[in-house]
Amino acid sequence: MTPTPVTRQLADFVVNSQWGDIPPAVRREGIRGLLNYVGCALGGNSDEAIELAIRVLGPSFGAPVAGIIGRGERCDVLNAAFLNGASANVLEYDDTHLATVMHPAAPVAPGLFALAEARGASGAALVHAFILGVEVSCRVGNGLMPHHYRRGAHITATCGIFGAAAAAGRLIGLDPVRMNWALGHAATQSAGLVESLGSMSKSIGVGNAARNGLAGAMFAEAGFTAAEQAIEGKYGFAAVASDTVDLGKITAGLGEKWEILDNAYKPYPCGVVLFPVIDACLELQKRFAGPPAPVPVPAIERIVVRGHPLLRERTDRPDVTDGRSAKVSLQHAVAVAFVHGAAGVAQFTDAAVREGTVRLLRDRVTAEDDPSIPVESATVEVRLHDGTIHSEHIRHGRGTPGNPMSDAELDDKVDELVSFGAPSIDARALTAAIRDLETLSYAGDIMRMTVPR
Amino acid sequence: MTPTPVTRQLADFVVNSQWGDIPPAVRREGIRGLLNYVGCALGGNSDEAIELAIRVLGPSFGAPVAGIIGRGERCDVLNAAFLNGASANVLEYDDTHLATVMHPAAPVAPGLFALAEARGASGAALVHAFILGVEVSCRVGNGLMPHHYRRGAHITATCGIFGAAAAAGRLIGLDPVRMNWALGHAATQSAGLVESLGSMSKSIGVGNAARNGLAGAMFAEAGFTAAEQAIEGKYGFAAVASDTVDLGKITAGLGEKWEILDNAYKPYPCGVVLFPVIDACLELQKRFAGPPAPVPVPAIERIVVRGHPLLRERTDRPDVTDGRSAKVSLQHAVAVAFVHGAAGVAQFTDAAVREGTVRLLRDRVTAEDDPSIPVESATVEVRLHDGTIHSEHIRHGRGTPGNPMSDAELDDKVDELVSFGAPSIDARALTAAIRDLETLSYAGDIMRMTVPR
Repeated sequence: MTPTPVTRQLADFVVNSQWGDIPPAVRREGIRGLLNYVGCALGGNSDEAIELAIRVLGPSFGAPVAGIIGRGERCDVLNAAFLNGASANVLEYDDTHLATVMHPAAPVAPGLFALAEARGASGAALVHAFILGVEVSCRVGNGLMPHHYRRGAHITATCGIFGAAAAAGRLIGLDPVRMNWALGHAATQSAGLVESLGSMSKSIGVGNAARNGLAGAMFAEAGFTAAEQAIEGKYGFAAVASDTVDLGKITAGLGEKWEILDNAYKPYPCGVVLFPVIDACLELQKRFAGPPAPVPVPAIERIVVRGHPLLRERTDRPDVTDGRSAKVSLQHAVAVAFVHGAAGVAQFTDAAVREGTVRLLRDRVTAEDDPSIPVESATVEVRLHDGTIHSEHIRHGRGTPGNPMSDAELDDKVDELVSFGAPSIDARALTAAIRDLETLSYAGDIMRMTVPR
Repeated sequence: MTPTPVTRQLADFVVNSQWGDIPPAVRREGIRGLLNYVGCALGGNSDEAIELAIRVLGPSFGAPVAGIIGRGERCDVLNAAFLNGASANVLEYDDTHLATVMHPAAPVAPGLFALAEARGASGAALVHAFILGVEVSCRVGNGLMPHHYRRGAHITATCGIFGAAAAAGRLIGLDPVRMNWALGHAATQSAGLVESLGSMSKSIGVGNAARNGLAGAMFAEAGFTAAEQAIEGKYGFAAVASDTVDLGKITAGLGEKWEILDNAYKPYPCGVVLFPVIDACLELQKRFAGPPAPVPVPAIERIVVRGHPLLRERTDRPDVTDGRSAKVSLQHAVAVAFVHGAAGVAQFTDAAVREGTVRLLRDRVTAEDDPSIPVESATVEVRLHDGTIHSEHIRHGRGTPGNPMSDAELDDKVDELVSFGAPSIDARALTAAIRDLETLSYAGDIMRMTVPR
């Protein structure tokens, strides 16, 4: 007997999954993923890229049935999905699926909230659809790694669209044939280049993944047909998108092993490899500073960061000019951690990049390779002018699998994001409502809570 | 001195091109391309895929500033570009750039007419932008062939989006930096799979190329930044999309060699490889039939088609079930040519596929490989029950470079498309207006002429 094709197996899984079959730890991670998503969009909604996108798309807004997180505007479900997807990812403060380095929530969640507002959906149905969408995105990514990403595909967008289509299709209630088509529409719309990272264009890729995945589910609902073996077919997505395809990884252990359990939340709005470095700097800063004394920047001669070669390769950027590039600058991350005792969204703005003390300290930071140090670890050594040396080694950076963000840390992160991007929102009430999402009868209520007063 | 990067060279070319520099033959081909585009959309606008797409997208329609060809509905420029792009390609009756097998007009033209309606533009400006857009699409395709298409990228969509962005950017009047960004936004949105061909999903790919290319230009206009080396960069489009990249082909002879001169118009709404076969069948049918006598189907024992192996490989499909698959069926094309003495849009509908005599004849058609026959040629041999054999060899099928469609043939094609899809339109008046496009002060007038009475 021929085995069921991959695309159809995914479709069947998403259609047939029962809420009662989702383990409690998986449900909890679904809630945490949604909380982090809403928080990131609240922080990101006033970013210049989002403001410009709203200006460009505004004349194309359809009937105002869905909200834009953190804002007063309302629009059609497709534009809402685009804007909320872009907004949730723009600060680089996402969740991260570590095996694929994908940020699953930004493409998957927006269509769900838009549908919930426009058509109605319970909180449990939304959480369930979100978990299934994350599962599909990550599994498609697993099947294409490592070559897909290495070649230059921006996997958050290229694979995120599959989860966006699956999740929206689940909330709509597609049958298996139509779910299969929804995944087919996702495949033929999959796009996004690593080359775009560092420019606003990245947000178009992520926004499109959210928008076009939702659209794919809506087209399928209407009976719009698609290739049925869109992933595994001869001229399908896998063949086009990777030279290292392992289709078995897409379906092995479906419903038993849950990818969302390997989804971590960023403690800092910057590149993942910088996390242990920032942890070490904040530890050292606390040692020096002991409030209220300021950190003695003039006393610092040099700061040496030792880590996996990937750290230097990706983040050795002493000359940064704006907040966007600062998010992948080792020098900037170290400098703000010492100067501000923090590395949150306020530390990665254009203003923070221009600050005098931060600039001074950036020039004194150097990186050294140590291949024996794993990528989730780092050592930071501070040499003072008086000859003393202080150093700190971090084994598992916060927000990596060995040291996940606690619920309290995640709540604090949401607070920080709200203060930064939508200070009139009641962050604690919103957080409580999302933590209780499973019991909410109308999930659209969450969106109403994200509208500024 | 470092040479100007490829993406920027394309941007500079599109921005700096002068109408006076466009040779008359190129202008004429621009007009013909636009005429064929409008005709195809008039024929395709009532296809089931377009009806469904309008139903799905309707609630997301923004302010009604742009028309949908052949229909009464109006919507925002982005949805108009999507629907007109999908509609112009849905019948497989496009123009074809032979080196890449790309259909350039469907992605490039829709955004231009939408902008012309919404913002105003002269006919000459629109024709000029169209020619430049076709140039960009085809050149990007040239640089990525043959591997890009062979691997499974639907090149009409994946490369068409570059031309859509360039053309729209030109009509908007972007400066070189913003034009460069527009191409960057195109690169990160490039998508489309050959696997989708034969399903409605193909129309999403082509519609998106039109829509997202236009959106890319509008985002760039607003100052939304993009990767500047989005085509040639390390993690850019070329690296991701093909293993046989020749960047030199993208820019060699820019402004001297015009790709649109190699753009042919389909004489039949089906696969290009079938053209010489249909020509031969129509010749034979005329010989038999001599009006008003019907073709003696019962007298036919067998029809053998000899051609390049690609012909059999792509089109040997005796069992077709709908109009969509009939467009790539040798058996169906031969059968309708004999039974109807025609192979137009009416011969590739679901109804035509179900017709008794056509079904009978389809079963008697076989294909034989002859590697010595080039792909633009074919031989058809009819064996009658009485033992006689009639045969016809076509060296250059109509609509191939050796035998291009004349202006009169193109006018007849538009007539046929209008009768099929929008019979209340005055086809001859519309054709005359498009042929005079260079002198029209408001190109939006053309769209008004495509609205049914």
